[in-house]
Amino acid sequence: MNTNKLGSLLFALVGTLALLAPSVAGARVSALPSWNDTPAKQRIVSFVQAVTTAGSKDYVAPAERIAVFDNDGTLWTEQPAYVQLAFALDRVKALAPSHPEWKNTQPFKAVLEGDMSALAAGGEHALLEIVMATHAGTTTEEFAGIVSDWLATAKHPRFGRPYTELVYRPQLELMEYLRANGFKVFIVSGGGIEFLRVFAERVYGVPPEQVVGSSIRTKYELRDGRPALVRLPEIDFIDDKAGKPVGINQHIGRRPILAFGNSDGDFEMLEWTTSGPGARLGLLVHHDDATREFAYDRESSFGKLARGLDEAGKRGWVVVSMKDDWRAVFPPAH
Amino acid sequence: MNTNKLGSLLFALVGTLALLAPSVAGARVSALPSWNDTPAKQRIVSFVQAVTTAGSKDYVAPAERIAVFDNDGTLWTEQPAYVQLAFALDRVKALAPSHPEWKNTQPFKAVLEGDMSALAAGGEHALLEIVMATHAGTTTEEFAGIVSDWLATAKHPRFGRPYTELVYRPQLELMEYLRANGFKVFIVSGGGIEFLRVFAERVYGVPPEQVVGSSIRTKYELRDGRPALVRLPEIDFIDDKAGKPVGINQHIGRRPILAFGNSDGDFEMLEWTTSGPGARLGLLVHHDDATREFAYDRESSFGKLARGLDEAGKRGWVVVSMKDDWRAVFPPAH
Repeated sequence: MNTNKLGSLLFALVGTLALLAPSVAGARVSALPSWNDTPAKQRIVSFVQAVTTAGSKDYVAPAERIAVFDNDGTLWTEQPAYVQLAFALDRVKALAPSHPEWKNTQPFKAVLEGDMSALAAGGEHALLEIVMATHAGTTTEEFAGIVSDWLATAKHPRFGRPYTELVYRPQLELMEYLRANGFKVFIVSGGGIEFLRVFAERVYGVPPEQVVGSSIRTKYELRDGRPALVRLPEIDFIDDKAGKPVGINQHIGRRPILAFGNSDGDFEMLEWTTSGPGARLGLLVHHDDATREFAYDRESSFGKLARGLDEAGKRGWVVVSMKDDWRAVFPPAH
Repeated sequence: MNTNKLGSLLFALVGTLALLAPSVAGARVSALPSWNDTPAKQRIVSFVQAVTTAGSKDYVAPAERIAVFDNDGTLWTEQPAYVQLAFALDRVKALAPSHPEWKNTQPFKAVLEGDMSALAAGGEHALLEIVMATHAGTTTEEFAGIVSDWLATAKHPRFGRPYTELVYRPQLELMEYLRANGFKVFIVSGGGIEFLRVFAERVYGVPPEQVVGSSIRTKYELRDGRPALVRLPEIDFIDDKAGKPVGINQHIGRRPILAFGNSDGDFEMLEWTTSGPGARLGLLVHHDDATREFAYDRESSFGKLARGLDEAGKRGWVVVSMKDDWRAVFPPAH
């Protein structure tokens, strides 16, 4: 067979497959095996079918099928503390030998002595100091290496597994299901963009250019004659709350049609997403499963969810119960 | 034929086509018809073949095939002035009826009277004032509409064609050639990110999420009860010179392997791109064609190119002569 004929045949076959698309998409629903057959899953599947069915009144062209996911508490566990905070505290300990003054200087003293109440007493300012001391001063490439090394060895205090294994299996399936239906999936996190990018591609299948997050400033300069991007101890952008729609606009430049979060830090992202014209879907993970993961909402220091629970009903957002809607939480241990 | 069999056959055919890939890629070289068969084109084609040939020492996985293009002077004409400046000046005139005070206030007075030397005398500060007055105050959606309307009617003073037709045909072909070879193509421009996004997808095939540019700050708020992103009169980021590698890192999160610019504003972008490990390609358009477009370099107010010309040789960058390397400059007029 010559190339031309092969090409024509291939073209014909692709055309035929396109006609079969609805049944193929139907088959893909079984690609959400870690979701129970509850209304939450049904809402997701109906939404995806509506926006991908050509001729449907809710049809959305592939280029506009943008889905955004928060990370902490939405894609991986955020209890007993944000993973990036665990990284920062471990990093203070690792750097302490070159900072003897930290033994007597707050908030570092509190971290080195494991005195979490002294640390908490320092409030946001103390945390900011710790973030700057542990996240700045290196080049972007050095920082990625430090995070990567840490993720390879750090373990979750309760589950004893690497943090990158404490990602939610139903969400991995959902992101895959969305991509199979022509969506482009972005992470939009309050966490650090360069922290996330170290593992987002490998763990979630989300490439660096589809990660939006908080950032510190970087500066381009020559270091020993070689170009480098150096991380400065200055906040550039906080991608949380009303910052999320701003970050989405800055990085994506289109309004998403699906947003998945879990805390009130995601409220504006869901509001922005679901207030656009046409079919839209907003979802919130509700952590109500103390047995398999954690149970928390209104009173939590990490991932507080109050306004979202109060307004989900009237806004048409789906509250996903970890206990009832998810058949499995984490991937099987190796 | 049932779906399974069809699927298997399709799979087999795709596999067969993959084996034919080198000849297909070879055929695609003829997809650069507006490039003359000069060393510049040969450098591009050899580079693309090297990074896409499995088993080659220079092979680059598709996910890492990031190409970045400057916009003004690299993808479209920037003479006699940046297009976005023409937009801003027209916008001052359009807004003047609601700003009677502008008749007697610089730099607006200069614009309204067409007194370009008075405007130039105001320097950078005057330009900034004009940008803020014409680019801020609206929502992001309103701004996109204003730009879109302007692009639909504005004409280039010399060529009498819409600006979006004064894009370089060889570059449209090159971006398409790169995409066909698994590259992801980004625009990295000193121009405004939200100005560019209005036409980048339609004209260049570059979606909004692959546009990096300068920006003003935006704020998320409710306007008449509806969520909106409002453009504030404050600079957020200048994506030029040493800002380009910073913008690339912020938006893309990987170092590109190919960078195409035309002015010293692109110097650091090319430097950052070509100083990474493995095969890299840096290119500069040299505007040396007064007949078909414009001839300018070292002394130009827009798109000044001096250091790039001086250092291209020793850095291995390709200087693309518009006169000698491009068979055509613009797409045919409709």
